[in-house]
Amino acid sequence: MKTLEHRQRPTLLAVMGDPCGIGPEVLLKALVRRPPQARVVAIGSMRALEMAAEVSGLHIALRKVAGVAHAVGGAGLLEVIEPDALPAAVVMPARVSAECGRAVVGWRNLAAELASRGEVDAIVQGPIHVESIAAATGVAQVPPLPGVVQSHLLLVAGRLRVVHLSDHIPLRDALDRVKRDAVFTLMQQTHEALRRWGVARPSIAVAGLNPHCKGPEDGAELAPAVLAARQQGMNAVGPLPPDSVFARCAAGEFDCALALYHDQGHIAVKTLRSEDSCAIVLGEPSLRVSVAHGTAFDIAGKGVADADGMASALHHAASLAAGRGFPAGVALP
Amino acid sequence: MKTLEHRQRPTLLAVMGDPCGIGPEVLLKALVRRPPQARVVAIGSMRALEMAAEVSGLHIALRKVAGVAHAVGGAGLLEVIEPDALPAAVVMPARVSAECGRAVVGWRNLAAELASRGEVDAIVQGPIHVESIAAATGVAQVPPLPGVVQSHLLLVAGRLRVVHLSDHIPLRDALDRVKRDAVFTLMQQTHEALRRWGVARPSIAVAGLNPHCKGPEDGAELAPAVLAARQQGMNAVGPLPPDSVFARCAAGEFDCALALYHDQGHIAVKTLRSEDSCAIVLGEPSLRVSVAHGTAFDIAGKGVADADGMASALHHAASLAAGRGFPAGVALP
Repeated sequence: MKTLEHRQRPTLLAVMGDPCGIGPEVLLKALVRRPPQARVVAIGSMRALEMAAEVSGLHIALRKVAGVAHAVGGAGLLEVIEPDALPAAVVMPARVSAECGRAVVGWRNLAAELASRGEVDAIVQGPIHVESIAAATGVAQVPPLPGVVQSHLLLVAGRLRVVHLSDHIPLRDALDRVKRDAVFTLMQQTHEALRRWGVARPSIAVAGLNPHCKGPEDGAELAPAVLAARQQGMNAVGPLPPDSVFARCAAGEFDCALALYHDQGHIAVKTLRSEDSCAIVLGEPSLRVSVAHGTAFDIAGKGVADADGMASALHHAASLAAGRGFPAGVALP
Repeated sequence: MKTLEHRQRPTLLAVMGDPCGIGPEVLLKALVRRPPQARVVAIGSMRALEMAAEVSGLHIALRKVAGVAHAVGGAGLLEVIEPDALPAAVVMPARVSAECGRAVVGWRNLAAELASRGEVDAIVQGPIHVESIAAATGVAQVPPLPGVVQSHLLLVAGRLRVVHLSDHIPLRDALDRVKRDAVFTLMQQTHEALRRWGVARPSIAVAGLNPHCKGPEDGAELAPAVLAARQQGMNAVGPLPPDSVFARCAAGEFDCALALYHDQGHIAVKTLRSEDSCAIVLGEPSLRVSVAHGTAFDIAGKGVADADGMASALHHAASLAAGRGFPAGVALP
């Protein structure tokens, strides 16, 4: 059983992402300028972090530790787990390499393992470079975490939070998945996650599928799913007109919206152009909050990267892991 | 052939919309506070306009005229065509009636006729109340203009302009319409409209259908449509990832985006929560710009309605009819 003190100040494991992108830089910037209410241990490349501190002109001490238990914490200090030091030749801005791809996957899997053992309360994931993953694995895709069968992306942009019924599948296939049971199960999963994170009576709005909810699936699949959820005591509404439900969620009317296909939610999130968006994957055994942006190789190593996304990921991880609910705006000062 | 002076100061026919909603009020507010570069003649109910002027405390003279040719114009004056005066009993805030529904349809059709005869250069349409239309016609739907077979909605919100391949049909049916020829035809229609309105070399971005454009239709239908358009000299791009194409258009990267189904475009427009959005229907013989909002019966007659949408519609009509392209922001001071 966790102590109250522990709950209020959870331990986050920050996986810095690709060493050649802006991940190390935005992690350090976010920690220095907008530290979350948490103890943070990093996992990644010492060299990449040292380079990032230098180009950004940040005053932060970096210390290598053997594991989370060895980290003692302290002001102006970041302790770093570095399972295998990367050769200097591959840690350079914007460099694609199998070494980095392999290291990134290894850090990510180690982080998941440490979290599943309870050594950390949440993981914060920096940006990954798919080309380097491909150079390492032969597949231009981030492999799922070991043991994760089905997952759902929950995107956060300001007060808009959208969980997606399906992800990267053709739209016609996504429509075939709009079924009462699948929608109900995702509502339940979302409800439970939000409760665990400290949202007292989470309100979840289900988007309709057809214009103004006037189509066969809205009545036959979605309305019964929402009814079943309400009968189980969930604070669920819908189906609501899909063109306005995300704007309403962004305005604070609901804690979360449920999108029925990738672009239904992603169009809303991207149109908001929020600088502080982040992403959570429902269905993983531990809380993991990722930045929503990429490695930005075009500006890597220049010290000009915007750290709002990483700050948002850190603050969401700290607040949700502590059961304090979603944090208020976290843009950098 | 129209004179230069005429092109620079076109004649707009403002159809005030339902007399019992906020239409008359927002029309007068927009004309007084942010007059468009155009000569404006109204069509509607004198009584409704007089009431609107009073509750809003606006100083504007209203004068009934027999037709557009009888309007002489003048500062602080609005000339109004009133084919049949509505009885006082039906012109009351938030009143649903067959009389008003019938009048609104009649004004709208008369405006289309005057425009097709060349008496006015564009129509500006105020908000319509569907329940009153239903009371008059038995159908809760605004009837299409006589002679209009196929039309496409072009929504405007700030710098985002989205033309829609289909409108109020179930999503599955909308997907069936995503065909090379239909998309090409709409690109051509959009290209020609934008050129007519004064956009020199209109850039049109076609949204993809599937996440990140990775699905059968993106390659088989959309890419060939864009290629054919480019071969005809159009400045067309796409298919582009549907989740970001609207944000990019809103940021000014393209003159117009083409959405493949109702909510693809509408989610983007509504998530922007722009106060000054308006709507144009491509496929009608004359330029007609409508407000994108409704009659707002809950605040009708109170003098508190926001006129940004009507101001936007008036300024768009004036600028496009004059061939000056899309106007810059038109929010009321």
